[in-house]
Amino acid sequence: MNDPALDPFSDPQAAVASPTRAPSQTASWRPLPGRLPALDDWQDPPVNRWAFTHLSEIVATATISRELSPHRATTNLGALAERIPDLEARLEATYTDAFLVVQQDHVVAEYRRAGVRATDRHLLMSVSKSLCGLVAGTLVGEGRIDPTAQVVTYLPELSGSAYDGPTVQQLLNMEIEVEYSENYVDPTSEVQTHDRSSGWRTPLPGDPANDYAFLPTLRGSGATGRFQYCSANTDVLAWIIERVSGLRYVDALSEHLWSRLGADHDATITIDRTGFGYANAGVSCTARDLARIGQAMLRDGEAPGGRIAPPEWVAAILAGGSRDAMQYAGWIGQFPNGSYTRQWWCTGNERGNVSAIGIHGQNLWLDPASDSVIVKLSSWPLPDENASHREQNELLLDISRTLSAPGS
Amino acid sequence: MNDPALDPFSDPQAAVASPTRAPSQTASWRPLPGRLPALDDWQDPPVNRWAFTHLSEIVATATISRELSPHRATTNLGALAERIPDLEARLEATYTDAFLVVQQDHVVAEYRRAGVRATDRHLLMSVSKSLCGLVAGTLVGEGRIDPTAQVVTYLPELSGSAYDGPTVQQLLNMEIEVEYSENYVDPTSEVQTHDRSSGWRTPLPGDPANDYAFLPTLRGSGATGRFQYCSANTDVLAWIIERVSGLRYVDALSEHLWSRLGADHDATITIDRTGFGYANAGVSCTARDLARIGQAMLRDGEAPGGRIAPPEWVAAILAGGSRDAMQYAGWIGQFPNGSYTRQWWCTGNERGNVSAIGIHGQNLWLDPASDSVIVKLSSWPLPDENASHREQNELLLDISRTLSAPGS
Repeated sequence: MNDPALDPFSDPQAAVASPTRAPSQTASWRPLPGRLPALDDWQDPPVNRWAFTHLSEIVATATISRELSPHRATTNLGALAERIPDLEARLEATYTDAFLVVQQDHVVAEYRRAGVRATDRHLLMSVSKSLCGLVAGTLVGEGRIDPTAQVVTYLPELSGSAYDGPTVQQLLNMEIEVEYSENYVDPTSEVQTHDRSSGWRTPLPGDPANDYAFLPTLRGSGATGRFQYCSANTDVLAWIIERVSGLRYVDALSEHLWSRLGADHDATITIDRTGFGYANAGVSCTARDLARIGQAMLRDGEAPGGRIAPPEWVAAILAGGSRDAMQYAGWIGQFPNGSYTRQWWCTGNERGNVSAIGIHGQNLWLDPASDSVIVKLSSWPLPDENASHREQNELLLDISRTLSAPGS
Repeated sequence: MNDPALDPFSDPQAAVASPTRAPSQTASWRPLPGRLPALDDWQDPPVNRWAFTHLSEIVATATISRELSPHRATTNLGALAERIPDLEARLEATYTDAFLVVQQDHVVAEYRRAGVRATDRHLLMSVSKSLCGLVAGTLVGEGRIDPTAQVVTYLPELSGSAYDGPTVQQLLNMEIEVEYSENYVDPTSEVQTHDRSSGWRTPLPGDPANDYAFLPTLRGSGATGRFQYCSANTDVLAWIIERVSGLRYVDALSEHLWSRLGADHDATITIDRTGFGYANAGVSCTARDLARIGQAMLRDGEAPGGRIAPPEWVAAILAGGSRDAMQYAGWIGQFPNGSYTRQWWCTGNERGNVSAIGIHGQNLWLDPASDSVIVKLSSWPLPDENASHREQNELLLDISRTLSAPGS
């Protein structure tokens, strides 16, 4: 299996990426062509050198925490508790695991349910997409990605697919018509095939062996210009990021985002059998570190360790995207001026709220008017229910309205 | 599958542990009876609440590091480099990934190969066993484990197995005759069946479904009093720890060791499909955090956040075990007064060196004479070669001899 010719996960990406990969990341790039060490060879040389510091990529792994789990909920809601007396009840009712309000550089409110530690990483689901949008922005700023170029310029593997024709900008804004059902609870939906190809569900016979193999199977009309939420778009974007950076997506996230953030903790991302990160959904991090991304967004992209996106990229997100393209009732029903741009949801409301949103109530909510960031990491029983999103957005809005403008 | 009666991983342990489990850990205990959420139900309620903060236990996960991988080796060998001019060459020649010398509270030498970060966790292999021995010591000190009691007093599931008769102390000292081959490269060996049952290799038809199911299959003569290194012993010990503490082993490690250590980072442990940690081999942590365990050992068990073992337990390890029991040529060939006690290797040499040892050159080496700890995390190509152990021990001894006694 060390022979690339015999490697079932071999893909053109690995070969192309190799010559351009950054020397800083050589050690953490795939140690075998196109796949990870597997259960039956990770203990053998030479790949054991890599595997011994990357074992969670191969074997199921639990965290031995340096903090004890608290018996009770952690509730420090400060002045918010006076202004919104039922806040704690609303957090509980909306399945909140961790909640944090950071205004300027101060944590003004926090909540964690019993058993959840400040150091626990929580799955972000589609908040992960917004992180991918920032890394793409950095590479656009460096001239390494041309948003006006066609996707297939970077990924000829996608010729003949739904992505043959549309541009990177259309990908970023989810303005591509793809035959892809986002019905998370339907086993025949494309999103479940995507999950099965990417390590999130048990594969069925005939499923693509990995995410790189899944993405080219997607078909579509080729029409563009109208918003269609499609999780596969983000993985295509991450694949472009790998192609132009020469980095594995997990390492691109480290180099262009996490190492600059001033993060307290490493984050994680789930991977398929080739080691490709599940960019559209698979990131987990602490609430505090997620808030740092929001704080940097409100600083034009400046984070303690460097820039996480160019100022004009951040400004474009805060300004909102195309209202013509956005015809999704689940969003404009609540935010009539709403839009979606560069993997972020824009409310277009009077406060200029912008949000990264996950299907079980994960939110990174920016309130530029008060220079505040709200993180709410939940685990709703059902994914992506309109009523749940509406309730959550109302809570985030209520909180935002209680936050004074800086200096006032 | 939510019905325990239908649960193939159901085991008596889960039912017994439940009434005694500590309230602090309720949230991180198994969310289903006797097994973890699986690939095909972790996204569903109610287990999604648990899964969203424990995803690495279910799906392969890569680390998004907050530090960049260094292009070159990190080499700060200080005065050691003058006293042992070929030190760096010897570290490289012995496949060192991370190396650290801590004298009193000061890091006096460190080395990491190119690409390895200070924050990277490295698989400890059998150094993991010595950590288990410390947790057992704490529970002995609290009177929750009686080392003179028979193993089956705690684990009636092991009646009829090699563990039916021997005491906990014999388990701790590996003085039980078990039909268990530690030939790591022989697919017919018990250690490979153990790996296959515990998530480290692909299961074969007929393999036990998990570690709890594997351990009772072991047979032996019942003879005791002679050292036989057997990895399964440590997992039996961890199972006893679960039984008496009511905690999952990973959480017992957190509560009794990691949360007291003053650790910079969480550690991890690989788990089987029930969530049981692979106590004999599966822990990964940073070199610096591993050194903290050694530092606490040289402080009679006192760590910044509490005690990691009773003073008499630590003293017994530093004093060494039975020389009569130890007849293993691979150890006494190099250390004629060597012994093994409470999951630690004791050299019995003039410096009183004691070591935790992994099969690919992982070492936590205590040098009480100079109040120093040496950590060496390697990835030898072949496991457990006598010549490699000998070379490594000579290097550790050479380094120890260059370290002055405190105050001298």
